[in-house]
Amino acid sequence: MKIAVVGTGFAGRTLAGGLAELGHQVTIGTRDVAETLARTKADVMGNVAYPVWAETHPHIGLAPFAEAGAGADFFVNAASGAASIAALTATGAENLAGKVLLDISNPLDFKNGFPPNLFVKDTDSLGEQIQREFPEARVVKSLNTMVGNLFVTPKAVADGDSTVFVSGDDADAKRIVTELLASFGWNDVIDLGGIATARATEMMVQVRLLTMTSIGTPMFNFKIAR
Amino acid sequence: MKIAVVGTGFAGRTLAGGLAELGHQVTIGTRDVAETLARTKADVMGNVAYPVWAETHPHIGLAPFAEAGAGADFFVNAASGAASIAALTATGAENLAGKVLLDISNPLDFKNGFPPNLFVKDTDSLGEQIQREFPEARVVKSLNTMVGNLFVTPKAVADGDSTVFVSGDDADAKRIVTELLASFGWNDVIDLGGIATARATEMMVQVRLLTMTSIGTPMFNFKIAR
Repeated sequence: MKIAVVGTGFAGRTLAGGLAELGHQVTIGTRDVAETLARTKADVMGNVAYPVWAETHPHIGLAPFAEAGAGADFFVNAASGAASIAALTATGAENLAGKVLLDISNPLDFKNGFPPNLFVKDTDSLGEQIQREFPEARVVKSLNTMVGNLFVTPKAVADGDSTVFVSGDDADAKRIVTELLASFGWNDVIDLGGIATARATEMMVQVRLLTMTSIGTPMFNFKIAR
Repeated sequence: MKIAVVGTGFAGRTLAGGLAELGHQVTIGTRDVAETLARTKADVMGNVAYPVWAETHPHIGLAPFAEAGAGADFFVNAASGAASIAALTATGAENLAGKVLLDISNPLDFKNGFPPNLFVKDTDSLGEQIQREFPEARVVKSLNTMVGNLFVTPKAVADGDSTVFVSGDDADAKRIVTELLASFGWNDVIDLGGIATARATEMMVQVRLLTMTSIGTPMFNFKIAR
């Protein structure tokens, strides 16, 4: 598949790398290519700047949002929550039409510090906002309940014995995402229902971040133990 | 200890039974003893009416809220979320003063059907509302992320390999609750921080209920896999 990953942050990059290793043709979309390539600072979690990462991933493209989106078969929204609608709009509603859009974002609002609040929750979600804004896209929310390090390497914690959730209105799109997750090694994928169930997984972000602080590492995942 | 369990529902009863088995003197508080003892119908989850349960637990008392609260050393709030403040007020702020109050409630609002919404979330929580209303009580939020069946029998799923969270401003109260949890067999207790972190665990209720629907059983628990 030709895949467009919207957003240059650590989570999107990690997924881009995993998708490229599966043999897909991956382009990362950004607002300003020159600005992205001029970055030098690591992010708050200590992840290296985009150009440093790109050196070790020369097979992954970088392009303006619309160019990354043109002709892509599959999309990943890996922009920050607050920037997601604008980044997807720049990627092009016409490009997204009919395509699977894997949305891994969370509606984080850091204006009150840590832990963040959510700018939408409970009675609506960012996943639903995206689906409403791009009604022809086939939005599937997933992977938003864990640190990016685990997306393509679930065995990095508990030998892979943990859970990933999917939410979406399009059953075939959820099947495609579930197969993709399986190809990364995910074997406990729980389908929560329609895209409205993204409310539930987006609201897990506070307990995830507080747990990270409590146990001193982001390297964990939720497991539905039964 | 002399323990008052506020509320006659399945969750409170289960905890009352477990606490009595540990040798504590347990009284369940209710608004109207005669009304409680006249119940005959099972609840929506199929749990038997209070009098049927009470027949097999003759050592556990039933009393009006204030009477249950008088002289108790330890309190459990097992009332429904919406009824919690009123039930605790009837139990008596003077009785709660200085005592540990284990709050297992969730702020569920079913007026829009299933899954329920939350009547407080993200920037506040029911745990904090209770702590503010009863500033002299030592509120510890815990056990609100699982079905009541597991409270005192964690080994009922995954051989006990799952997680319980605690939130509270009083470190000594959290220690007391953590020891109580350990006596039930909980060996992965994660301290998330102050009572404000109850926001995080209360917001997990949607994903828990959707997961119950998806996998077809309430008999599971969150595990922080690491």
